[in-house]
Amino acid sequence: MPRKHKTLPRLFVELPLAVGAELQLEKAQSNYLVNVLRLGEGGEVILFNGTDGAFRAVLANGSKKAARLTIEEQTSAQTAPSKIDYIFAPIKTARLDYMVQKATEMGVNALRPMQTQHTQMSRINYDRMRANAVEAAEQCEILNVPQVHEATTLEKLIANWAETDPNRILVFADEETKVSDAAVALKPYDNQQVAVLIGPEGGFSEAERQLLRAQSFCVPISLGPRILRADTAAIVALTLVQSNIGDLR
Amino acid sequence: MPRKHKTLPRLFVELPLAVGAELQLEKAQSNYLVNVLRLGEGGEVILFNGTDGAFRAVLANGSKKAARLTIEEQTSAQTAPSKIDYIFAPIKTARLDYMVQKATEMGVNALRPMQTQHTQMSRINYDRMRANAVEAAEQCEILNVPQVHEATTLEKLIANWAETDPNRILVFADEETKVSDAAVALKPYDNQQVAVLIGPEGGFSEAERQLLRAQSFCVPISLGPRILRADTAAIVALTLVQSNIGDLR
Repeated sequence: MPRKHKTLPRLFVELPLAVGAELQLEKAQSNYLVNVLRLGEGGEVILFNGTDGAFRAVLANGSKKAARLTIEEQTSAQTAPSKIDYIFAPIKTARLDYMVQKATEMGVNALRPMQTQHTQMSRINYDRMRANAVEAAEQCEILNVPQVHEATTLEKLIANWAETDPNRILVFADEETKVSDAAVALKPYDNQQVAVLIGPEGGFSEAERQLLRAQSFCVPISLGPRILRADTAAIVALTLVQSNIGDLR
Repeated sequence: MPRKHKTLPRLFVELPLAVGAELQLEKAQSNYLVNVLRLGEGGEVILFNGTDGAFRAVLANGSKKAARLTIEEQTSAQTAPSKIDYIFAPIKTARLDYMVQKATEMGVNALRPMQTQHTQMSRINYDRMRANAVEAAEQCEILNVPQVHEATTLEKLIANWAETDPNRILVFADEETKVSDAAVALKPYDNQQVAVLIGPEGGFSEAERQLLRAQSFCVPISLGPRILRADTAAIVALTLVQSNIGDLR
């Protein structure tokens, strides 16, 4: 926001993209392009696949079952992957959709669901998370669609951290932190790899909070004096990280 | 977030509140308390009215049409009004609901709808905005329910600013601002009265942007390199203001 007027529709495809290439879309995407976006033959669309950048393509054959496109030019180079992962306790569906979309808009590199003691987590719908991330990327002209990781538990996450991701700090919202200013807490970690962790609506258990605080790679920050819902806390925490040690400066 | 477990339900009422008072709720709220929250006689609820603080009350008579409550104790003093107003171009209903809820969570003092050149604004549903603000305040333990102002136009807003609110700065998201760091842009205005302005999804027109920039009370800030939807931009801008010159420090 604000977005430019009359921008072309954007479509994420799981196909290699290069100038001059001809693509045939599978049925669901063909139908979406022709019936939902109402693109006619000769109509233009921006394609991206998360790795090759963005390309302007022209509809050569408006079949609703197997639309064919010709790639005319590259419109953007692929952007560098974000340094920020987002780790979260899944919440109820409607607001989880929203949270995934918003984390994508805020430029995260990965969406990592996590079980905690107070998480009410039934089956995780990974396809739905992925679809929400793709939709947000299409709407907000983001070329790095975040990867959706398999769910883990907080204990495993902490136990494996040093081995799997030793240079990444883990920023978490701690209502009892003594360093109340996120700018002060984050300052030593300029440009570092970061994971932002938002707990469940019920909060972390006391044992979990102690576990987090005991880790040298964990950085507690305050999200302020008000109670925030988890989806709001996500955007607030990501804004604090992006504005202090990320690309929102 | 995180929120405490087993907190009592919270109910906003438009009645004076004081320890020892007995209240009779009107029909809709009686029904909500007894049928939706399933509060039985002797059950407890937190009441607040936006001016007197929060109070623990006990259900004396569980009538679904005219529930009676006795106020037992004050649980929180009324909080000071926020220094931040939120001015916004209304967007489509579902996300407008969300935007109003989120602005309330972020602690704004007033919700001020505004027409711009690129705003698609049909009839504004003030009651719905008010209901969303109340709901967010109930859920997030906020005692200052933001006032919903009558809609105005950007031109009128600017024309009347010096007369109606001369000491308030107007912070707006400007993708072309040269001061890219919100911390730098906001620094001179520590603790000042602020209005945060988020334009429509179509962006401000060039004339509107020039109008805003020409005002000495306007402070342009950048919301970063990504395109944000208006409801996300609201939370990001409010976080930047609260974390730099507000209460999120």
